[in-house]
Amino acid sequence: MPISERIEMRGHILDTRELPRVLNEILEGDADFVIERFEIGKHAKDESWVQIMVSAETQEQLREVINRLQEFGANLVDPGEPEIVIADVEGSLPLGFYSSTNLETQVMVDGNWVTVENPEMDCGIVIEDDGIPRTRPMADILVGDKVIVGPRGVRVITEPLKMNPDDSHFEFMNSVVSSEKPQALQVRLIAEDFRRVKADGKKILWVGGPAIVHTGSGPAMVALVNAGFVDLLFAGNALATHDIESNMYGTSLGVDLSDATGVEHGHEHHLRAINRVRRAGSIKAAVDEGLITGGIMHAMVTQGKEFVLVGSVRDDGPLPDVYTDVIDGQRAMRASLDNVGYSIMVATMLHAIATGNLMPASIPLVCVDINPATVTKLSDRGSAQAVGVVTDIGLFMEQLAMELVPGYRSS
Amino acid sequence: MPISERIEMRGHILDTRELPRVLNEILEGDADFVIERFEIGKHAKDESWVQIMVSAETQEQLREVINRLQEFGANLVDPGEPEIVIADVEGSLPLGFYSSTNLETQVMVDGNWVTVENPEMDCGIVIEDDGIPRTRPMADILVGDKVIVGPRGVRVITEPLKMNPDDSHFEFMNSVVSSEKPQALQVRLIAEDFRRVKADGKKILWVGGPAIVHTGSGPAMVALVNAGFVDLLFAGNALATHDIESNMYGTSLGVDLSDATGVEHGHEHHLRAINRVRRAGSIKAAVDEGLITGGIMHAMVTQGKEFVLVGSVRDDGPLPDVYTDVIDGQRAMRASLDNVGYSIMVATMLHAIATGNLMPASIPLVCVDINPATVTKLSDRGSAQAVGVVTDIGLFMEQLAMELVPGYRSS
Amino acid sequence: MPISERIEMRGHILDTRELPRVLNEILEGDADFVIERFEIGKHAKDESWVQIMVSAETQEQLREVINRLQEFGANLVDPGEPEIVIADVEGSLPLGFYSSTNLETQVMVDGNWVTVENPEMDCGIVIEDDGIPRTRPMADILVGDKVIVGPRGVRVITEPLKMNPDDSHFEFMNSVVSSEKPQALQVRLIAEDFRRVKADGKKILWVGGPAIVHTGSGPAMVALVNAGFVDLLFAGNALATHDIESNMYGTSLGVDLSDATGVEHGHEHHLRAINRVRRAGSIKAAVDEGLITGGIMHAMVTQGKEFVLVGSVRDDGPLPDVYTDVIDGQRAMRASLDNVGYSIMVATMLHAIATGNLMPASIPLVCVDINPATVTKLSDRGSAQAVGVVTDIGLFMEQLAMELVPGYRSS
Amino acid sequence: MPISERIEMRGHILDTRELPRVLNEILEGDADFVIERFEIGKHAKDESWVQIMVSAETQEQLREVINRLQEFGANLVDPGEPEIVIADVEGSLPLGFYSSTNLETQVMVDGNWVTVENPEMDCGIVIEDDGIPRTRPMADILVGDKVIVGPRGVRVITEPLKMNPDDSHFEFMNSVVSSEKPQALQVRLIAEDFRRVKADGKKILWVGGPAIVHTGSGPAMVALVNAGFVDLLFAGNALATHDIESNMYGTSLGVDLSDATGVEHGHEHHLRAINRVRRAGSIKAAVDEGLITGGIMHAMVTQGKEFVLVGSVRDDGPLPDVYTDVIDGQRAMRASLDNVGYSIMVATMLHAIATGNLMPASIPLVCVDINPATVTKLSDRGSAQAVGVVTDIGLFMEQLAMELVPGYRSS
Repeated sequence: MPISERIEMRGHILDTRELPRVLNEILEGDADFVIERFEIGKHAKDESWVQIMVSAETQEQLREVINRLQEFGANLVDPGEPEIVIADVEGSLPLGFYSSTNLETQVMVDGNWVTVENPEMDCGIVIEDDGIPRTRPMADILVGDKVIVGPRGVRVITEPLKMNPDDSHFEFMNSVVSSEKPQALQVRLIAEDFRRVKADGKKILWVGGPAIVHTGSGPAMVALVNAGFVDLLFAGNALATHDIESNMYGTSLGVDLSDATGVEHGHEHHLRAINRVRRAGSIKAAVDEGLITGGIMHAMVTQGKEFVLVGSVRDDGPLPDVYTDVIDGQRAMRASLDNVGYSIMVATMLHAIATGNLMPASIPLVCVDINPATVTKLSDRGSAQAVGVVTDIGLFMEQLAMELVPGYRSS
Repeated sequence: MPISERIEMRGHILDTRELPRVLNEILEGDADFVIERFEIGKHAKDESWVQIMVSAETQEQLREVINRLQEFGANLVDPGEPEIVIADVEGSLPLGFYSSTNLETQVMVDGNWVTVENPEMDCGIVIEDDGIPRTRPMADILVGDKVIVGPRGVRVITEPLKMNPDDSHFEFMNSVVSSEKPQALQVRLIAEDFRRVKADGKKILWVGGPAIVHTGSGPAMVALVNAGFVDLLFAGNALATHDIESNMYGTSLGVDLSDATGVEHGHEHHLRAINRVRRAGSIKAAVDEGLITGGIMHAMVTQGKEFVLVGSVRDDGPLPDVYTDVIDGQRAMRASLDNVGYSIMVATMLHAIATGNLMPASIPLVCVDINPATVTKLSDRGSAQAVGVVTDIGLFMEQLAMELVPGYRSS
Repeated sequence: MPISERIEMRGHILDTRELPRVLNEILEGDADFVIERFEIGKHAKDESWVQIMVSAETQEQLREVINRLQEFGANLVDPGEPEIVIADVEGSLPLGFYSSTNLETQVMVDGNWVTVENPEMDCGIVIEDDGIPRTRPMADILVGDKVIVGPRGVRVITEPLKMNPDDSHFEFMNSVVSSEKPQALQVRLIAEDFRRVKADGKKILWVGGPAIVHTGSGPAMVALVNAGFVDLLFAGNALATHDIESNMYGTSLGVDLSDATGVEHGHEHHLRAINRVRRAGSIKAAVDEGLITGGIMHAMVTQGKEFVLVGSVRDDGPLPDVYTDVIDGQRAMRASLDNVGYSIMVATMLHAIATGNLMPASIPLVCVDINPATVTKLSDRGSAQAVGVVTDIGLFMEQLAMELVPGYRSS
Repeated sequence: MPISERIEMRGHILDTRELPRVLNEILEGDADFVIERFEIGKHAKDESWVQIMVSAETQEQLREVINRLQEFGANLVDPGEPEIVIADVEGSLPLGFYSSTNLETQVMVDGNWVTVENPEMDCGIVIEDDGIPRTRPMADILVGDKVIVGPRGVRVITEPLKMNPDDSHFEFMNSVVSSEKPQALQVRLIAEDFRRVKADGKKILWVGGPAIVHTGSGPAMVALVNAGFVDLLFAGNALATHDIESNMYGTSLGVDLSDATGVEHGHEHHLRAINRVRRAGSIKAAVDEGLITGGIMHAMVTQGKEFVLVGSVRDDGPLPDVYTDVIDGQRAMRASLDNVGYSIMVATMLHAIATGNLMPASIPLVCVDINPATVTKLSDRGSAQAVGVVTDIGLFMEQLAMELVPGYRSS
């Protein structure tokens, strides 16, 4: 005999597009539904509300389906208390664990809704000794952790679709991943966002790939760092290496940036640059010794800004600051996310997805790439808040610096 | 018994990369070679010279191979007089016709080298009654035309690789089709080219696709037209339609450009725009009647600049100015190429290749597209002089206008 | 004072995703709405029904908004009789004309709903002397035609979302444009479709680009023609030229297909092939004379199948069968669509979009291309029924022939 | 006063295309040249030989230029004995270190040319206590290592271009990165290579991305493993996870592979799969326990084949077998390369480049991807021996299994 749970969704009338997704999700999870109540608004600004009975053959199926529906803002009508199972194997979760989203989440603890401190997708939720529920990645689970199992006792708070004109530009940018948009306008909107975030006392996180250097955007990035628009940088070995190589040798992977003649085989320059920094011990030491006299990493060091570099299997060297253990790297990235109010990802798929995986959905995320597939992949992986800007990195950085840094490119 | 011809190549020492291509070409044409002499320069600025005996089993094979080698600047040592065959079928060439390149070409006429007036690839060469050899497309051949058959009596003049510093930027841009280049620098180099071409009293030809409008680059293009940097425009029905639609309705295929909110289904607006212009009779008439009050086509009309619009099978309407017969369209394009000193192709593959097919190689050709495949295809089709700029159209146009039009975007 | 019209939509419960689109469309057309009634089904297979009052400031705004809503299956509750305006300018429609969709459409004529004979998007609808409403492209409008203006008296019949298992594969394929799908399965599903369409006595339309020849798929295509799975072929000059060139010279634009060594500059071979066919007068004449002895066009001719070749501005030659006037070409394509039950578009964007523009939405349309952008563009242009298969043309054709032609590739 | 070294190149006559590259390289390294002797062959199969004097202002410039020229097969005429510097900082090389290529390399040790045991690009060369020179990555350098500095005493052996017909297919495939090639033929050529490599008793290395699973190619890959054509597998966390998820849950990142209906949000399935394997302790343990009953990893385990999984910063979990330290992962990959005679990289950029960086150029490398950029990037990074096949993964794997595994897909 099937077992059932009752869920509800509330939202803006224009948000009813979520309903068919929820119904589909139910059917595809081998569950069934009855729409018990549906109250639709009459006018453009009204709210709607729907209550659905979901039923499945087994407890496990029902549990999984309802866990998934929360991503769409559908919660149990009667959530009750969470089911807790004590972790018994280090670095792994109990079977049937509640799989977290990156949305604002609340857990019923002793009869009260308590907000999960650090929303992050694809984690377990552990109720810690202070009574606060926190997401915990699988690898960090310890024997004895109190882990939530199943969907009971958890609800996800989704924001209704914004309708006031002030938010329209995010709506606009979010609408389609396309290179056919007024790009100059997009740059201006992002610049406005930057100013507002800084005015709010929040940090701007950059996640960057080496194409920032290859496209000659180093000077623009340096100007943005010096003007205070880069508080935190996540990258891999390549961005930092090519930036430093470019400073030491005036080249970046075979492109001589100053006089613009191609240098086909400048490969070993990046090796020599890495080697020198390894001899110095760290990027900061190399800056202090005068080995590195300019560029992005130099600006980050001299401005006292934080960066987290995480390695990959294709790295040469790497630079001494690079985390070679990727799980350690993820921990360092997580630890530095405090007070980040905006994130921008430029020309990097690997680190963009990695960062998207770690961040709460509440932090706006702009992904700039010449390749539409990068943005699409970011969204597919669950970072639905990602706004894609498909454009040329070099011109984007140039225009962003011109918008934000008075006098930039007066030379 | 094989038959042979002796060919020679001269070129800069760094140009010896052409030699293996020529040898390959010979082998792949089922012919064989003996390198009879090879004099290589000693220093970077020296010239080299090579003489090769090419042999094949049949006259036809030899003829075809030697015809092809001319694209690399390899000519017969002893070209002799051309073989002439009188065209016998309207709209088609005699068998074995000499197939033209878009390079500077000379024909031996009555013992003198006479320059072909209008180099164009993939045509026949007709010696006209005034004794001047001219390329003639197959479709325009008339019964009685004196057509050159085989490679004899024809030579191609290729320019040696430029080594002086002034040309280095074209070299640089030509080196690789890649989005990873200092794009801001590229825009500046193109702006310099524009100024120099105008100073020389030559025309700048634009070939544009509708993405110029979609990306919000209409105002930048209008500024460039008004500032005199657009002398001639080749496009299809789409560019003109979306430009005019954008002026009449403030939209372009579903993108509302003024307030930047997406309009998903504005499709029929473009139809209504076309319909109105058809009712007026022509774009100029619609401008004169006040139906069109701004935009690119309006600027072209009011500045008295020439445009050639050629249709395609996917066109709605089309606009009354559009050539619906593509061969007529090609004729109109050819007829307007006089005194063109530079060509820039933005966001269009079809019309870019079409134009590349018609133009002599001596006109510089810059192809700007976000898709590297477009540039690659242009080169593959024989427009080897194509310089590719893989970048975002919107930001490219914005920056180009800022470089060239004082005060642009002060608003 | 605003004026209003009442519209209604009916559909499957899972189809309620159309509702927010309709509401958005209304708001973006500067109109407003009140949801007067909304009856939602309870279970997965139930129908839903919604009635909406739409209001706008002007008659023209209201008219345009309602015209657009029909694409989503929203019709006037009380459509009344159509408003007719007599065309006064040849080749153009009266202002405010009803812009057709490619969906099944009915017009109220003398109190009865009469079905539009030939649904095609972006046309006017003319009520002809026999009382039958027919779509008519703008260019074919004659002075005196009775053209429908505004949305009154017209309704669009949309099919509800299919839920029975037999249709699930079309659903599946339709879901996302992606290269990450079980491709071998997709080929099998298309082969099943082909067999069913042929069993129903319908024609299969192919729209093909030259990459069919470049990828070595000529033999697979020939096998499909000979086995009766290609009833009608739409293409440009390039497909036919490279196919014929490949038969005459064993090459296709520089790729020697028999022994698989690259031939970089075989360019003029295609010219010589075109020239020979021009001398013969037509492809059929060239086949009859023994000039063309194999390949796709040879198979089409010898099997007595119809083909329509339409030119483009980049064409060399072209072949004598090619329509050089694109509007004539469109007419020829339209005229041959009778009894087509399935269409497949392989490796062509231009002709695929052109064909999508002409066909009623009721003909299934599969678009096969290695480039996801082609399928996306096809959908964006309004061919929403397009199913995209992002895959390699060469392997796709090979496997399709293996599925459909017993003994194929036993050699 | 400038200082000079004399270099020489020998090669096939058609290989003279390397000469202009070498000359360019010299000029771009701010050095100069004099061509002292050049003897060119006369016929297609002859060899050529050139001797060049290279000069630069400083020893360091000359050293770097000559180091780079070795990639083109240009060696010092009089190499002499290598200069050795003792490493003084752990994990870094002495300044001016000789930067290795992945080509066959010999070092003069005590008057004899001794072959470097393990050619790998971008390493130092250490002469070990047994007198054998070996490449050593920077991170593995120990204080006291005898490291070669500068180009003296080292020569690189490049193979002349192959001209015999047996090698023509590699030539063919190598010619251009393009999707427009006879793909069915390419699959057959790769299958032939596989059989020959196995007949020679060598190992076949696969480097794979998760798209192998997403495209439904798991069964084809399993068939290839079971038939003995997969000796070694390099991959990341994703391939193994999605393969195991697909076995445990019948899904892979939202695509239900058995009944082909899309499952949009099956995200947490992969987490649950990873979690179960973590609880088991290893993939092998999970296979032994019966948790994993089929799929690629199951086949690798039951066939006793080796796999190396290396993590990345975007990984969830990861699986317990995954190296989370990327430098450890590189070491494990290197350690397993023994006796590999062929490598094929399917649908992965990160691990393909990583593997390309580690392997000697003498191991043939085929890179299969639907994205041409992946192959291009592989070549740009120095894996010049990479042969690109731009095709659909799903159909490629299906056809490869059909070629190699008798009876495959009889079901």
